[in-house]
Amino acid sequence: MKRKIILASHGAMAEGMADTVKMVLGDWAGDIAAYRLEPGQNAIQFAEEVKSQIEKDGECEFVILTDLYQASVCTAMCSLVQYPNVYVFAGMNLNLLIALCTDYRQKLHESDIETLISISREGIRYIRQESMNVQGDEF
Amino acid sequence: MKRKIILASHGAMAEGMADTVKMVLGDWAGDIAAYRLEPGQNAIQFAEEVKSQIEKDGECEFVILTDLYQASVCTAMCSLVQYPNVYVFAGMNLNLLIALCTDYRQKLHESDIETLISISREGIRYIRQESMNVQGDEF
Repeated sequence: MKRKIILASHGAMAEGMADTVKMVLGDWAGDIAAYRLEPGQNAIQFAEEVKSQIEKDGECEFVILTDLYQASVCTAMCSLVQYPNVYVFAGMNLNLLIALCTDYRQKLHESDIETLISISREGIRYIRQESMNVQGDEF
Repeated sequence: MKRKIILASHGAMAEGMADTVKMVLGDWAGDIAAYRLEPGQNAIQFAEEVKSQIEKDGECEFVILTDLYQASVCTAMCSLVQYPNVYVFAGMNLNLLIALCTDYRQKLHESDIETLISISREGIRYIRQESMNVQGDEF
């Protein structure tokens, strides 16, 4: 199965995450592209570029991770969910990206989406002062 | 209340998030520093540098967001939770950082931590193919 992961953000977060996952996973990171929206630019233009790639390669799975739901980058990418081989997430963190590159390298199914959201959310933790216990699971 | 937010990651993710939040929030982003661990470096050295800052400025609140729980950057930062003016999170995403810079600019209390974790987690969404409904709340 062919997959392209696209990280998309305002500013340099997407590029930064691409660099980080390559440092952590090496070649396991796979095919990852990063898009940064600069001030004054319009994310719709980038979404059109991704749309062209999608229409040229229906066999490839496009997994698009964005920085912030309801912000312009995510909203532009949302227009692409009309394609059955496109998956769009918002609020990306490193846990989500690593899970996609390791345990979820195969074609995604509905049940995988639910698990990926859980993995990503559970990765967000607060490290408590007392006894270095990690809190988070109960929230 | 004086606060310093420290973003810390393997590779460029921390720097990227700092750039992104400054683009999104402008001056509201406040005092944010970014640390990147390079291959071959040891995060403990950076934790020691932050420790020196903390010990020099007990009036300042240090909120440290890290990329990945149980990875070396987070583990090094965890040693700093012994200080009452230090808060360490793992699995950072943009929702968490924006919340800290906007609605949670004041001194953090226990109840704020729980809410911040919830905000951060709820920011992680999957945008469904059908009708552009956003899934996530039910997970």
